[in-house]
Amino acid sequence: MPTKVDLLDHGYVELVDVWGSDEDIVRAARMSTNKGFQGWEKDEKLLAYLYNHKHMTPFEMAGMIIEVQAPIFVFREWMRHRSMSYNELSARYTPLPDINYIPSIDRLMINAGGGNKQAWTIKDAKELTETNARAFQVALAEKYRDCEFLYREALADGVPKELARVCIPVGRYSRMRASANLRNWLAFLTLRMDENAQLEIRLYAEAAANMLRGSFPKTMRLFDDSRN
Amino acid sequence: MPTKVDLLDHGYVELVDVWGSDEDIVRAARMSTNKGFQGWEKDEKLLAYLYNHKHMTPFEMAGMIIEVQAPIFVFREWMRHRSMSYNELSARYTPLPDINYIPSIDRLMINAGGGNKQAWTIKDAKELTETNARAFQVALAEKYRDCEFLYREALADGVPKELARVCIPVGRYSRMRASANLRNWLAFLTLRMDENAQLEIRLYAEAAANMLRGSFPKTMRLFDDSRN
Amino acid sequence: MPTKVDLLDHGYVELVDVWGSDEDIVRAARMSTNKGFQGWEKDEKLLAYLYNHKHMTPFEMAGMIIEVQAPIFVFREWMRHRSMSYNELSARYTPLPDINYIPSIDRLMINAGGGNKQAWTIKDAKELTETNARAFQVALAEKYRDCEFLYREALADGVPKELARVCIPVGRYSRMRASANLRNWLAFLTLRMDENAQLEIRLYAEAAANMLRGSFPKTMRLFDDSRN
Amino acid sequence: MPTKVDLLDHGYVELVDVWGSDEDIVRAARMSTNKGFQGWEKDEKLLAYLYNHKHMTPFEMAGMIIEVQAPIFVFREWMRHRSMSYNELSARYTPLPDINYIPSIDRLMINAGGGNKQAWTIKDAKELTETNARAFQVALAEKYRDCEFLYREALADGVPKELARVCIPVGRYSRMRASANLRNWLAFLTLRMDENAQLEIRLYAEAAANMLRGSFPKTMRLFDDSRN
Repeated sequence: MPTKVDLLDHGYVELVDVWGSDEDIVRAARMSTNKGFQGWEKDEKLLAYLYNHKHMTPFEMAGMIIEVQAPIFVFREWMRHRSMSYNELSARYTPLPDINYIPSIDRLMINAGGGNKQAWTIKDAKELTETNARAFQVALAEKYRDCEFLYREALADGVPKELARVCIPVGRYSRMRASANLRNWLAFLTLRMDENAQLEIRLYAEAAANMLRGSFPKTMRLFDDSRN
Repeated sequence: MPTKVDLLDHGYVELVDVWGSDEDIVRAARMSTNKGFQGWEKDEKLLAYLYNHKHMTPFEMAGMIIEVQAPIFVFREWMRHRSMSYNELSARYTPLPDINYIPSIDRLMINAGGGNKQAWTIKDAKELTETNARAFQVALAEKYRDCEFLYREALADGVPKELARVCIPVGRYSRMRASANLRNWLAFLTLRMDENAQLEIRLYAEAAANMLRGSFPKTMRLFDDSRN
Repeated sequence: MPTKVDLLDHGYVELVDVWGSDEDIVRAARMSTNKGFQGWEKDEKLLAYLYNHKHMTPFEMAGMIIEVQAPIFVFREWMRHRSMSYNELSARYTPLPDINYIPSIDRLMINAGGGNKQAWTIKDAKELTETNARAFQVALAEKYRDCEFLYREALADGVPKELARVCIPVGRYSRMRASANLRNWLAFLTLRMDENAQLEIRLYAEAAANMLRGSFPKTMRLFDDSRN
Repeated sequence: MPTKVDLLDHGYVELVDVWGSDEDIVRAARMSTNKGFQGWEKDEKLLAYLYNHKHMTPFEMAGMIIEVQAPIFVFREWMRHRSMSYNELSARYTPLPDINYIPSIDRLMINAGGGNKQAWTIKDAKELTETNARAFQVALAEKYRDCEFLYREALADGVPKELARVCIPVGRYSRMRASANLRNWLAFLTLRMDENAQLEIRLYAEAAANMLRGSFPKTMRLFDDSRN
């Protein structure tokens, strides 16, 4: 099981803490019938029954905390999940580090060559060429530099941190800890590993899923099976 | 730190799992300023600042799971706390064990002798005598017996479990696991250790608080100080 | 649309308040694309798309409040839904009215004659006869009477209300108001109108569904279609 | 009661829907004692008792939905309130309108002249002069223009919407609907009208409070009194 995974150009997911186990989920479920853990021969079936019939409360008796570095726009999507707990870097308290996301050429060219990958463009868009993709990377890097320059200058001039930051693009990296019980992680993964989720957050979701696979192998096998 | 505590005549609280620590709470809080744990000399003040200024999200990065045996009426109050996770014995699946709560004479006589303890009686009630308190205990034990007799008979006669149980009094013991993060445990304790909470659930809350004191001594000192 | 429906022998569901409409749900969903309501010709498809692809947040922009009288064991199941708001009669503050649930013969005989209706009995149970079902009704009424007698006597003798109530069976009726947004009502209905839910709470869920059908006809048609 | 209020340079709060009333809150609270609304002479005291003793569940039986246009960094703070419902403009689906926040000179100079207003600057910052504040405004407007130019160009070139947006600064305006029950609005106001909250979100919180004052005058008087 990896405890830290690098993602995108400057992001990562790092395991902070895990509680509970597949066995604890069974023990919690067995509360309803006044029995404890019976051994996996019997309880593998119970776990599958719970999962497949959406008896999800026993999956609240385990969980995981991770640390995440990701672009602000990824955090914006992530934090729509209101059942998680978050502690994030605050630009009111500290200047944000100058770390910014530049999508790779492959990522920008996602619609090229057909296939079932896709990402929405505006109606009258040209087809993206590799030349234009590279030009976007260059121009983006330049904008990040300009914004950072303005940001630092404003801070030095005495503009309050909470106002100097308004020029920071949503591609800037931020950092947080996120905690949820296993049930809510599975809900997050279901939405964010979906093929309609934006690729960036899917990579983070898959990294989180890998960590969960290490700690909850039987539950995650059920999750993985349900997606095929 | 006790891992199991007996309560009332047949109840208990048992520690199942704990995650995180006082130090992890500080680490989570330090996310906002991009710093880690700095040592308790400095961070004791930070923890106190967080707690006293109600910056409670870092306290969501730790938690506790307990197993509880308590009368149904206690569970009814407990489960109004919607931020906890629960798995409870179900009378639809298994006959409830014949374990019932009979309040002690001291408990029944709570209003005797004045003092700041009190519990509401109806308007035209007599003052409770020890004789009447004892008579209530005896009559209550008898009713529990009668109800159990009817329950078992109905079950044996083929009345579905989910219907045979309608005669069971709310003083019958049930059992559950309860999980919450530390922030939500503190919210629970604040309400249920309050002098206006019913004495039975206060005893459970105090037992839970004791377990938290073992795992989160610094946070719980802040909690205890805030109540004096 | 009915505004009050009687259920079981002494229960009811009564409409208290409704907010929002099918159209408001569309308007909320259209926030994401910066457009308003476009007329049902176009927006009927949008509503169906949202529902069928589980984009449920727009359904949080409408809701319903009802008043419910139901047996305590029904409330115990209901209140496991932690996303609703509740205000219930409290036996600590006021003596509970002497209203009790006696299942009908048909209900008790649910397993008779096969069919896909069923309710779990204990392992070595006899097959329930109509004679035994009637005997259970009579014995149950008697137990309710005995418990009420003890309850009133204890209250008159000065036993605190919060303790005198421990003898009250879970078949006693209580009363509450329940509020939720439409998304959470639909989650409640999905679980509690399911054939595996206990029949009593299913009747309450169906009554709530009927009220929602009156206020949110298009959304509820999608819900109903998804269940067939 | 205003139904739409302009805020900052391009923001607004607009009332969408309200449900319940001060009287409904009392009715919900009276569920616990099996009584209805008794007239304000008596129930004004009850409402105050509920509020001042933090019996907050009856305040969940009313609520408000608003539409908000605010800078992204304001939404980032707002959406940390996980008990609200949100539907927001999505840059994955539609290009964001070119509306951007430029703080006023007064706002930038918040630390000037002492007083109890304050906003954190970096350690070695100069004292902000009006000249430098004006220069920041000009440079900021220019950066917004540059970023918008890059954004439009990238969109036209076929960069997917979800990627072209990474250059957009957090001072860009977005739009959403937000719904919460009254209890959760009060929790939001308590934190976001606090003098430690960032001024921008305080203005939005105050606008929301004004709308609530129109619909829930008695509850809001209690809220206002508790803040003095």
